[in-house]
Amino acid sequence: MSDSSINMTVRQTEQFLHLYKPPAIDGNFKGKHIISVEQFHRQDLDMIYAVTKDLRQRIINHDPSLVKLAEGRLMASLFFEASTRTDMSFQAAMRRLGGSVVTASNGVQFSSVYKGENLADTVRAAGCYADIMVIRHPQIGSSYEAAYYLDRLNERITIPTAVISGGDGAGEHPTQALLDLFTIADLKNGPDNLTITLVGDLLYGRTVHSLAKLIGLWGAQNTTLCLVSPPSLRIPDTVLDFIVKHGVKVHETNDLYEVLNQTDVLYWTRIQEERFARKADYEAISDNFIMTPALLNQAPRDVILMHPLPRKHEMGTPHDHDILDKNPRSVYFQQMENGMFVRMALMAMVLGAAV
Amino acid sequence: MSDSSINMTVRQTEQFLHLYKPPAIDGNFKGKHIISVEQFHRQDLDMIYAVTKDLRQRIINHDPSLVKLAEGRLMASLFFEASTRTDMSFQAAMRRLGGSVVTASNGVQFSSVYKGENLADTVRAAGCYADIMVIRHPQIGSSYEAAYYLDRLNERITIPTAVISGGDGAGEHPTQALLDLFTIADLKNGPDNLTITLVGDLLYGRTVHSLAKLIGLWGAQNTTLCLVSPPSLRIPDTVLDFIVKHGVKVHETNDLYEVLNQTDVLYWTRIQEERFARKADYEAISDNFIMTPALLNQAPRDVILMHPLPRKHEMGTPHDHDILDKNPRSVYFQQMENGMFVRMALMAMVLGAAV
Amino acid sequence: MSDSSINMTVRQTEQFLHLYKPPAIDGNFKGKHIISVEQFHRQDLDMIYAVTKDLRQRIINHDPSLVKLAEGRLMASLFFEASTRTDMSFQAAMRRLGGSVVTASNGVQFSSVYKGENLADTVRAAGCYADIMVIRHPQIGSSYEAAYYLDRLNERITIPTAVISGGDGAGEHPTQALLDLFTIADLKNGPDNLTITLVGDLLYGRTVHSLAKLIGLWGAQNTTLCLVSPPSLRIPDTVLDFIVKHGVKVHETNDLYEVLNQTDVLYWTRIQEERFARKADYEAISDNFIMTPALLNQAPRDVILMHPLPRKHEMGTPHDHDILDKNPRSVYFQQMENGMFVRMALMAMVLGAAV
Repeated sequence: MSDSSINMTVRQTEQFLHLYKPPAIDGNFKGKHIISVEQFHRQDLDMIYAVTKDLRQRIINHDPSLVKLAEGRLMASLFFEASTRTDMSFQAAMRRLGGSVVTASNGVQFSSVYKGENLADTVRAAGCYADIMVIRHPQIGSSYEAAYYLDRLNERITIPTAVISGGDGAGEHPTQALLDLFTIADLKNGPDNLTITLVGDLLYGRTVHSLAKLIGLWGAQNTTLCLVSPPSLRIPDTVLDFIVKHGVKVHETNDLYEVLNQTDVLYWTRIQEERFARKADYEAISDNFIMTPALLNQAPRDVILMHPLPRKHEMGTPHDHDILDKNPRSVYFQQMENGMFVRMALMAMVLGAAV
Repeated sequence: MSDSSINMTVRQTEQFLHLYKPPAIDGNFKGKHIISVEQFHRQDLDMIYAVTKDLRQRIINHDPSLVKLAEGRLMASLFFEASTRTDMSFQAAMRRLGGSVVTASNGVQFSSVYKGENLADTVRAAGCYADIMVIRHPQIGSSYEAAYYLDRLNERITIPTAVISGGDGAGEHPTQALLDLFTIADLKNGPDNLTITLVGDLLYGRTVHSLAKLIGLWGAQNTTLCLVSPPSLRIPDTVLDFIVKHGVKVHETNDLYEVLNQTDVLYWTRIQEERFARKADYEAISDNFIMTPALLNQAPRDVILMHPLPRKHEMGTPHDHDILDKNPRSVYFQQMENGMFVRMALMAMVLGAAV
Repeated sequence: MSDSSINMTVRQTEQFLHLYKPPAIDGNFKGKHIISVEQFHRQDLDMIYAVTKDLRQRIINHDPSLVKLAEGRLMASLFFEASTRTDMSFQAAMRRLGGSVVTASNGVQFSSVYKGENLADTVRAAGCYADIMVIRHPQIGSSYEAAYYLDRLNERITIPTAVISGGDGAGEHPTQALLDLFTIADLKNGPDNLTITLVGDLLYGRTVHSLAKLIGLWGAQNTTLCLVSPPSLRIPDTVLDFIVKHGVKVHETNDLYEVLNQTDVLYWTRIQEERFARKADYEAISDNFIMTPALLNQAPRDVILMHPLPRKHEMGTPHDHDILDKNPRSVYFQQMENGMFVRMALMAMVLGAAV
């Protein structure tokens, strides 16, 4: 894109995917923007997961020094779309470290942004006050845009700010992948030597793309990813190429039962009926894509069932939920709680706290 | 209800009034859900009120150890309907104890709940992050539902969560009753040996039901409750039976002036014009149910005038408000401030803090 | 207004401009409501700016004692209209002092206020829980109304509350003026011996009125205010008289280029196209009132360009913004960050913290 065309128009958020390159962590989290799983390599994951386990233990122990880690530090929470779960998880993480959280009292969707102010100026405003900014925004590239402008702002002010993505539209949701992989590492000592089965809409599912890539970046040894989706909702080739290149064995199928009994980790995601032209097409495949208590009982005894939540019909009826929740194979609540622990570790390290 | 019908439908919030039985406090608040006044008995009230007075004094003294009581602990605030007063009171209470508060940045009404997620899943999400959850919800039974699902969740995760009701529809509002009774105890050394007059809509008024029952549970000695309402808005028989069974003397009337000059505590509540078929019916009785400066001056000199707030026409015009506010008999602002002190005590004890 | 008419109607917010007189600071900030620049005199400004610089340095030093200054103290944030920037700045300021912030979880616009409760009762509710209340409200006089009712409330409760205005409609925005003047003092050792040029809509611009008056109250020595506006948007005579009376030299013009090369501080504000009857009239003057990179390069090398933000077309295109942001003359981000430092100082002093 030429400078002259930039001159003419408002720069589109998606362009920042090209204008900004996220820095590799390379063993040093301090002050880094966290917007893509591709910033991480094995040593970074080992570091953050060690800190995650340590912080979790310190919470259990009611360690009073925990609240010194981010004392006096501020996180700004900019949620341009609702995501109570992610929002609360980040807020809780910052507060359990002793830090504080600033949100727009009336919600950013009522704020100046919606009076015509552009995203960049809102980012710069919060950047003037906070040490860390968590941004969730429906447009792909929004966290890249935030990082781009914060780098420029940080040169001009006293207190620099790092952005952490809370999910940008169809783009990435790196902390979700970090917590998913942590759960696999924590409960199954993985992903090495495991068969991990991802089920659902693998074409549009942001969560599974990021997780699959992160498993590749881990440098997994003897890991098989089974990718179970309807043919029309296969994982994109770019993601597939990425994980194969990183040495992960891949098995694609539309038949869950082909892989269920070898599965160690069953990662379930939503499949939207709207993706199908005809209701009959959807119903024909629902045996494979709607979890039920009976289905879970057919899985190996030591399988773990994961789900990014919130869940809908892909996990059956509310009564099914109740029954699934009691099954020790279901670990999605631990997974959700792990989100807080992983985000605590990530933020402590970005703040440069001595953990 | 049979299991098969549960299987078919989403379970209704109101059903949880039967599915979940709140635990008695029995001198131990730690980790208990607080959703009904019926969990309390005299010793529990004595304990919480002693702590309330202690915490209030420590605030006045700017005691720096106060913020150690809930340091590192989190309260999630889930307000599914607006109630600024109750919301702020709980938040302020937690923060004055040194704890933190997590809310949905954009308000829960914009959150996943309204994207079709059920209450149970929202409760479980916040339950994964918080030590205490305060829930306010328009449906009766909602805090029972939260308690039910939290008990199941707490078995699966690291950090257990206790729910405290902030009011559920036409159901209960236990902390309002606790603060009301504290105010009576604090200012009038009651409720023993007092005549307490409850005025207004006693049929639909959740506040007065809970207060009346709590006075019964106190095991009041020589307490008279005067219940002043239009005949069509009498207190329900279930509440009446409860308090009579607990030894409270009751005097029902529709004529305030019959009991005003024996009254020690005058508890005023709203009466909605819409309850009356004809405007004339409402106007005919308004002398008894609209507070004015002149009316208050007819009450005994040492009466205290209480009101759960917010107030509307039942307390006269805005100018009447100004005049009433200056009258030393009016204690509704102390009552409101006491709400924060009582909630501090309650949360400190539920958290197991060494107060 | 006679007492009898007060008796009849709800008192209008604007009336409180006459009913309540803000107290002069006179060297003592503790417990004072802060609602007008006219409360400040030179010694007060010297005090607050000394504290501001000290607190800024302690943030840079990560001074752990900073969070003791407001530990255990509460700020209630009542934003009845959206202003993310001001809202976050106050919240961040309180939290960096170690204090806490209470907001309505769902935003006050959904709260009881909008169910018919009057402003006074909402102010009293928050006043029962908080040490400091920040109020932003679209109606002129609203912060005066808050101060009026808090004085009455504070006599009745345990914890008194001081209000700080976050801007009331077309009225005042005193903390904006305080941070603007601080920026001039900090970066240009002013306002003495400077030429300060205010550009834009000087008739309706609340910000420039308050800043101009505060420069007068400083007792500026050898300060020239250049007031650049279209003839139809001249500064009001009341403000003009105030600053002339306080010894500030004034130069009014509609031609920026007449004063640009003598300017030390260029304070840019929005001019709304809607103020002009015909689009052609607006375009005819836009050379003077739309900032561009080329224009800024014509200003003296050591000029500082200030703007209260958010910015729109009066600062050119988004691409212009990017270029302007890189120009070292542009200090509006430092100015915005200074807002947090000044508000920290102000709140610490109002709380009586030993800074």
